[in-house]
Amino acid sequence: MTAQDDRRHMAAALALGARGQGRCWPNPAVGCVIVRDGRVIGRARTADGGRPHAEMRALAMAGPAARGATAYVTLEPCAHHGATPPCAESLVAAGIARVVIAAADPDPRVAGRGVAILRAAGIAVMEGVLADRAERDLAGFLSRTTRGRPAVTLKLAASLDGRIATATGESRWITGPEARRAVHAMRARHDAVMVGAGTARADDPMLDVRGLGIDRQPVRVVLSRHLDLPGGGRLGHSARDLPLWLCHGPTAAADLRTAWQGRGAILVPCEVEGGQLDPASVLAALGARGLTAVFCEGGGALAASLICAGLVDRLVTFQAGLAIGAEGTPALAAMGLGRLAEAPRFVLEEVRPLGPDTLATWRPAGT
Amino acid sequence: MTAQDDRRHMAAALALGARGQGRCWPNPAVGCVIVRDGRVIGRARTADGGRPHAEMRALAMAGPAARGATAYVTLEPCAHHGATPPCAESLVAAGIARVVIAAADPDPRVAGRGVAILRAAGIAVMEGVLADRAERDLAGFLSRTTRGRPAVTLKLAASLDGRIATATGESRWITGPEARRAVHAMRARHDAVMVGAGTARADDPMLDVRGLGIDRQPVRVVLSRHLDLPGGGRLGHSARDLPLWLCHGPTAAADLRTAWQGRGAILVPCEVEGGQLDPASVLAALGARGLTAVFCEGGGALAASLICAGLVDRLVTFQAGLAIGAEGTPALAAMGLGRLAEAPRFVLEEVRPLGPDTLATWRPAGT
Repeated sequence: MTAQDDRRHMAAALALGARGQGRCWPNPAVGCVIVRDGRVIGRARTADGGRPHAEMRALAMAGPAARGATAYVTLEPCAHHGATPPCAESLVAAGIARVVIAAADPDPRVAGRGVAILRAAGIAVMEGVLADRAERDLAGFLSRTTRGRPAVTLKLAASLDGRIATATGESRWITGPEARRAVHAMRARHDAVMVGAGTARADDPMLDVRGLGIDRQPVRVVLSRHLDLPGGGRLGHSARDLPLWLCHGPTAAADLRTAWQGRGAILVPCEVEGGQLDPASVLAALGARGLTAVFCEGGGALAASLICAGLVDRLVTFQAGLAIGAEGTPALAAMGLGRLAEAPRFVLEEVRPLGPDTLATWRPAGT
Repeated sequence: MTAQDDRRHMAAALALGARGQGRCWPNPAVGCVIVRDGRVIGRARTADGGRPHAEMRALAMAGPAARGATAYVTLEPCAHHGATPPCAESLVAAGIARVVIAAADPDPRVAGRGVAILRAAGIAVMEGVLADRAERDLAGFLSRTTRGRPAVTLKLAASLDGRIATATGESRWITGPEARRAVHAMRARHDAVMVGAGTARADDPMLDVRGLGIDRQPVRVVLSRHLDLPGGGRLGHSARDLPLWLCHGPTAAADLRTAWQGRGAILVPCEVEGGQLDPASVLAALGARGLTAVFCEGGGALAASLICAGLVDRLVTFQAGLAIGAEGTPALAAMGLGRLAEAPRFVLEEVRPLGPDTLATWRPAGT
């Protein structure tokens, strides 16, 4: 088995794992490929909802042929007993001869113990193959494990001059169908879609994934300090069918809490700071409830508060070819910036045309 | 001579002509290549200042060998007697056997008469080779000839959220050195650089081309209805060395007119409409003075008024990876937009990374 073979099989495992993004939380979307004599005899990703793990499914597919084979796993196999035995022990029991791992698992219940179990059983272990790509794919799980909060992707879809609506609130449509379709695909790859109360009120959005034929929808998260959202809108009407989590402050009125719970929403109490929901508290609460990756679609106030708090891990900007002018709603609300040198900075990763619009991805400077 | 040869030699003529952009006004920056037996025996562009024309210079280089040769010209040769004989007659006199032309000249003094002179002399003429590219390169000349105004390129260089300065007016630097260098190269390819009075006051800009080793600077145009610009700034101090044209309204005070003329500025009277300089009147006045291509660098009020009036022929947007927030100065001022459907639209031509920023070019929809 050459290093090139190892990378090729790991790339296949990564592609498998990536298909589980947005579907496996609170567990990571892992991919596993089992290879014997150059032939793939097992391949799987973590199942929807997080169980069974990728390794267990791939071993089940391989059957007795797994004896003496090599397993490619995008994340260090787990070492802790839960509802099922740990994957590291299952790989040993199946007679796997060699395990190739992309990313290490920082979960304190694993953190090298998965590898130790394998090595103790005489299995050859190679770590760090395509680790960068794995760490990027598993960023949500790694963020929740090491920082206690989900990874945050912020989307800004604006006109040439950075506006997300006209002065009268018209926002449909600024970007073209290709960009809107890409947004739905991005929603599907995250555990949750998040907006502020202003956007929920102004746009009456559904916040679901449409047109992609997926059977598992992301959680819809709305921040509303006072829970004073219109109950008769699309979110309220659909809260029994698609998960709707409402992040609110301690002073939200009891009758509004009861009403929203009655509609099927889940209430997530959060802290308030400076007169608004503290975004760090919101993300900590979402992480505690199992979310690993959140896709924030604004509006301007929430986007600005996330950026100011340094809580944006990836920024996706769509620029549409139309001019709205200064009366329009800004993509980012006031940020209280003192000097230009204090402006939060992002590093361009990629920019390309997408239909009539441009699509750029950025990561925070210094990461 | 195959069609492929024709395109290859015309491409060379276009590349030559393009080098004259920003240097030949009020004349077009034409390129000419003379080929005999597959060998290039003459090549030239229109000289700085617009004379001699490309054909005359290329014929001079070719000398007697021009007899029987093919001339590639990016624009129909001129037919009118001016300070020198018309190029069409010179091509005939030199014994050129065949002339290949990219773009037709809509100048009423030419408009097919150049071709007619050649054909009447028995010269084989082929028109329209690489015409699209030639019309793009010669857009300024064609605009001035057919519409009486220069072509306008509008540059918007803004933060992720469409801001060109902080609330306190800090704007240096939002984009990176690569973008700023590209802006200087764009300035050099235009006859003039144009800004509004607000930008002239806020930034105290020089508006020259720096760092590219060019010996011919674009005209600097500033719009100031009342001519109430600070005379002690960089524009005022340099008006004797680099051309400075001030577009003003009819009510500009006599003492300010005298003062600016005393500093070396050229005054360009324009009309006022709705309380501000009418951008169409400004461009007509600039066209009447010979400018064919103007590069507008804002600020937000001038940019918005040009876009609203449908006077932007090409839009160049730089997006920098930093967030300024809603207190910042918007790239486009208020536009009085009623509905989203009325928003001026632009078609994306290209987008790419440029250093840490993105660079996109757009043309108005419907053109």
